Amino acid sequence: MSLFGEVPALDSDAAAAARARQAALTKPLGALGRLEALSVWVAACQSACPPKQFERARVVVFAGDHGVAASGVSAYPAEVTAAMVANFDAGGAAVNVLADLAGATVRVADIAVDTAEPLSAAIGAHKVRRSSGNIAVEDALSPDEVTQAIDAGRRIADEEIDAGADLLIAGDMGIGNTTPATTLIAALTDSEPVAVVGRGTGIDDAGWARKTAAVRDALYRARSSITDPVALLRICGGADLAAMTGFCAQAAVRRTPMLLDGVVVTAAALAADALAPGARHWWQAGHRSTEPAHSLALRRLELEPIVELDMRLGEGSGAVVALPVVRAAVATLTAMATFEEAGISEG
Amino acid sequence: MSLFGEVPALDSDAAAAARARQAALTKPLGALGRLEALSVWVAACQSACPPKQFERARVVVFAGDHGVAASGVSAYPAEVTAAMVANFDAGGAAVNVLADLAGATVRVADIAVDTAEPLSAAIGAHKVRRSSGNIAVEDALSPDEVTQAIDAGRRIADEEIDAGADLLIAGDMGIGNTTPATTLIAALTDSEPVAVVGRGTGIDDAGWARKTAAVRDALYRARSSITDPVALLRICGGADLAAMTGFCAQAAVRRTPMLLDGVVVTAAALAADALAPGARHWWQAGHRSTEPAHSLALRRLELEPIVELDMRLGEGSGAVVALPVVRAAVATLTAMATFEEAGISEG
Repeated sequence: MSLFGEVPALDSDAAAAARARQAALTKPLGALGRLEALSVWVAACQSACPPKQFERARVVVFAGDHGVAASGVSAYPAEVTAAMVANFDAGGAAVNVLADLAGATVRVADIAVDTAEPLSAAIGAHKVRRSSGNIAVEDALSPDEVTQAIDAGRRIADEEIDAGADLLIAGDMGIGNTTPATTLIAALTDSEPVAVVGRGTGIDDAGWARKTAAVRDALYRARSSITDPVALLRICGGADLAAMTGFCAQAAVRRTPMLLDGVVVTAAALAADALAPGARHWWQAGHRSTEPAHSLALRRLELEPIVELDMRLGEGSGAVVALPVVRAAVATLTAMATFEEAGISEG
Repeated sequence: MSLFGEVPALDSDAAAAARARQAALTKPLGALGRLEALSVWVAACQSACPPKQFERARVVVFAGDHGVAASGVSAYPAEVTAAMVANFDAGGAAVNVLADLAGATVRVADIAVDTAEPLSAAIGAHKVRRSSGNIAVEDALSPDEVTQAIDAGRRIADEEIDAGADLLIAGDMGIGNTTPATTLIAALTDSEPVAVVGRGTGIDDAGWARKTAAVRDALYRARSSITDPVALLRICGGADLAAMTGFCAQAAVRRTPMLLDGVVVTAAALAADALAPGARHWWQAGHRSTEPAHSLALRRLELEPIVELDMRLGEGSGAVVALPVVRAAVATLTAMATFEEAGISEG
């Protein structure tokens, strides 16, 4: 059974046209470095050269709690997740501020926050459950729940794309969520826990040891399922991660470019590319966070981060900081003069 | 004799206030990585916490030809410099397009373009001469000209700051200009030509060998002056580089933050920090270009680039691509909620 439709290929004709246009613009070929490659990617995603500047860039923050937070893997108490959902809704979080500056809007979706009632009906429209299970000792989700969560993400992608989104960014919010994310990446890349566990929001040495133990225990429970992304999301992931997986995969199926954020989103993306092979061609890595597992996942996806600013916040914040660079790339194709237009001999 | 007034220190009280505010914002301390440090820097430059978002970011492109272009050190003919000045004036160059997107405006100044008449009176208001001498065989400038060129850059900085510029970016345009820039950096860092010579706009192996020979010959002629930045600008620099030096130094004297661009601007900045010690504290490195000498100069200035996108265009283009990151840093201090405002326990 395939959960997702076939991932379409990027438009190689539009890519070739963009490369040819880059060669004609008033600058030495290659002098814009990464901007040239990004402009070609956008043209290929949009099947258009010059491509259009993004008009409806949209961030969706997937919020969920994790039972493993009770194992002391985070520097913050689980109540912070719900409080931050309210902060996103009020526009006071980093991603709100950064998105506003970068010309993007933010939606927050309560997928598995540990509250009886979501903050609002809209925010809770796709809620799967209260928190996910403690992956150190139990499955994160039931078989029904993991399907429901993946589908929630798929439907959110459809909603946003149907509403006109032309660039998507997934963000995450959830105390403890780097623990399942790290476990997923370790499983999908066959890596040892000690090589991949990072400091998350800033845990101390004892917290790091507890987190590493939780990852090891979760990996042990998932040992017979490491080639099955859905089983992994169920055993050692969580509802928010499963929703992000559906979101990332469906964006690619729907030909909508996406900027990946940090370790949590990229863990989901790794699962999404396994479920919908080739989806990664529709993504760029917004940034490289300080989490070791993030670099491992990016390498596996063959994605090179656009910026490296030692950020480790999540929320989509790193991807949003990279958005102006992608906009700059688009602008070179849409607005720069060619040598011919400027009446300059190319030497 | 000191050419410049004393460089003021950044405001350490404002920096401390910005650090304290970063610690109170709704995110783990340090989670915004480089953005936090940049926000502290802007607060310290402006003596204000929160700092104001930049309203008048201004790029000045310093244009000049170089006699050394006749030695075959560039992939482009010298006539391209004048043609590109017209392209900047018409708004079709990369820096125009990127600045527009980043909320900055562009001015081009003909310092030493090899034309009898400047494109306009405004563009030529500070013109020093037609081209600079071929540094492989002769001094770039006379003693009077180097003083005049440094003063031109100082006056341009004064003009822009008096007109309200709150952030400055220097850009360069000049066929052959990476050769004197590389020579200056080699002299000021006591480096060997082969270690610092890059491909500029994209020369082939034979061109690289000619460029390396030109740098070596210029360095030989400058061998008794390597501790005197003004003498170096005269012997193996050029009028545009001397003007950029005056511009970078005066920005710091006038307490105006600046983003450095690529190898040419950074060569001038290295000379400026030697002439006006401490000026570098008022600068951030916008990007790291592919030119080896650029990294050497940045290391000497103890500046870490904000973005690394393999750009090598000049014009101020790399710094302008970094500007949204600096704006993002400012926005975290001005617009994010604190834990207290959001009613969140810090755990």
